[in-house]
Amino acid sequence: MKKFLNDPVDFVDEMLDGIYRAHPKQLTYAAGDRRCMVTARPTAGKVGIATGGGSGHLPVFLGYVGDGMLDGAAVGGVFQSPSAEQMYEVTKAIDKGAGVLYIYGNYTGDIINFDMAAELADLDGIQVKQVVGNDDAASSIVGEEHKRRGVAGIFFLFKAAGAAAAEGLPLDEVARIADKARLGTRTIGVALSSCVVPEVGHATFSIGEDEMEIGMGIHGEPGISRKKLAPADAVVDEMMERIFAEQDLGVGSQVAVLVNGLGGTPKEELYILFRRVSQLLEERGATARHVFIGEYATAMEMAGASISVLTLDEELDRLIDAPANTPFFQHVKL
Amino acid sequence: MKKFLNDPVDFVDEMLDGIYRAHPKQLTYAAGDRRCMVTARPTAGKVGIATGGGSGHLPVFLGYVGDGMLDGAAVGGVFQSPSAEQMYEVTKAIDKGAGVLYIYGNYTGDIINFDMAAELADLDGIQVKQVVGNDDAASSIVGEEHKRRGVAGIFFLFKAAGAAAAEGLPLDEVARIADKARLGTRTIGVALSSCVVPEVGHATFSIGEDEMEIGMGIHGEPGISRKKLAPADAVVDEMMERIFAEQDLGVGSQVAVLVNGLGGTPKEELYILFRRVSQLLEERGATARHVFIGEYATAMEMAGASISVLTLDEELDRLIDAPANTPFFQHVKL
Repeated sequence: MKKFLNDPVDFVDEMLDGIYRAHPKQLTYAAGDRRCMVTARPTAGKVGIATGGGSGHLPVFLGYVGDGMLDGAAVGGVFQSPSAEQMYEVTKAIDKGAGVLYIYGNYTGDIINFDMAAELADLDGIQVKQVVGNDDAASSIVGEEHKRRGVAGIFFLFKAAGAAAAEGLPLDEVARIADKARLGTRTIGVALSSCVVPEVGHATFSIGEDEMEIGMGIHGEPGISRKKLAPADAVVDEMMERIFAEQDLGVGSQVAVLVNGLGGTPKEELYILFRRVSQLLEERGATARHVFIGEYATAMEMAGASISVLTLDEELDRLIDAPANTPFFQHVKL
Repeated sequence: MKKFLNDPVDFVDEMLDGIYRAHPKQLTYAAGDRRCMVTARPTAGKVGIATGGGSGHLPVFLGYVGDGMLDGAAVGGVFQSPSAEQMYEVTKAIDKGAGVLYIYGNYTGDIINFDMAAELADLDGIQVKQVVGNDDAASSIVGEEHKRRGVAGIFFLFKAAGAAAAEGLPLDEVARIADKARLGTRTIGVALSSCVVPEVGHATFSIGEDEMEIGMGIHGEPGISRKKLAPADAVVDEMMERIFAEQDLGVGSQVAVLVNGLGGTPKEELYILFRRVSQLLEERGATARHVFIGEYATAMEMAGASISVLTLDEELDRLIDAPANTPFFQHVKL
């Protein structure tokens, strides 16, 4: 296992120690627990947005805590849900009287714990709403979207809702916008190699030297097809075919695109993938108004990529382009 | 070879096509040649800053073309120097009457070509100065710094000089500042795995499953020691020992730190490395005023990391913290 680490048991807590040391002006924690991350720059009266989930996906989840994005994140072990109590502590810390929105991915453990945290918060009189990201179009068929996993496209929910909260919108509106971004986002991933969970010490799954798996989840959940690695353009064609099947993009359509590296794939290759995405959109007369390319939701060292497309209306267009500044993501309006 | 690409011969040009498609408001090119990248947002009367070098190191080099950083980059093939003519075309395009500063890494091909480009520019009456990055402390002994390679620490030269040029300083001053950043920067890298040059198709070098190589260059140049992969803290201790040997950091010293991933190493691990860097600085009474963690200069999919430390004075402190906005790097002053 070729990782920079000390005792694997300390992986998450040493990572968090490093993060707090690197970004003391931006991040702090609640309840004396480093796994209850909150912004060090809270805004009075603003709707709070919390997320949470397993570690090993940086910048997801905690990397989006910061100006114009999220207010807190409950941090779990590698690929493990944080506890309901940690979510509750984050909730209490970030509630500034306007309520709290939870945005997280559709995984059973996270749902159970966030539900419990919401109940605890309710007893304290903190209003909580929830939007559960389920953008992974590969993980269930149309009509069963509620079974789909949340993957990289959750970035668009964070970005749109974060900007809405920063504009001072009330909880109902911030939740409406997060849900609109959720309904408008589709993601398809492709994995080329496995990741290694530090405490496990070996690859989560094996995949042949010339194989790819389309639709694989960010914890190594099985995808929809494993086949010989095709040229980049053909890979994108297959991925985008599934996205276009669910998003009716034609002349005049406006979208935001995220080409996300899963960890081990260089940016050079992500741009080669985006080139083909751009060509396909162009062929349809659709416009990529906002383009994000890089590592936004990873599976540690997994090689591979995902493509997320968000269909924009005027409101989402404005919110996606609003400024943001977190330790892991900055957006400057041109 | 598990890469997303089409014909390996087209790797760089398709990557560039993707980059121009993704960032049309920020980037364009000169002389009808995509490999002559220039900013799409030039500033009249400002000193121009050009860089250049081989591809395969994103964000280095072209990724730093943008507001508050660089004005142009000549883009070579993977690990190959761009031509003198390309550098000359970039120079002409970005000269706004205040002259042009070249900042690039200490590699023979780049030096020959940039020297030739400077001569051509001189014939056109364009004043050119050059600062050649040589931050890799592993690549030659003290006293022979002129033999050292330029690696990730060149980011600090780009950042400081870019901010100085954005402030409107004249060429001599921008060059002085770049050179001060050069003299104040030391980098040490450690590689855990090889990279694969697309047109070659196999690993550049081999390294054992339990080995690391300290001091390896970003093209796979031999380092100073190959040994068993140690715990993260011990790796950092060894790297920082070499940096401290050349930078006399004690109580009250102020530095900027860059923990750079070489491509295949996840951010989680970079933060574990930074944690130890931070502890060592703390022990000495030194302060990391600015911290950058992520992929700043890569060798495609190579696993590994480098640590760069820049000793700050008041001027460099201000310039490193100035705002910047390029497609690959954004800095927002808090």
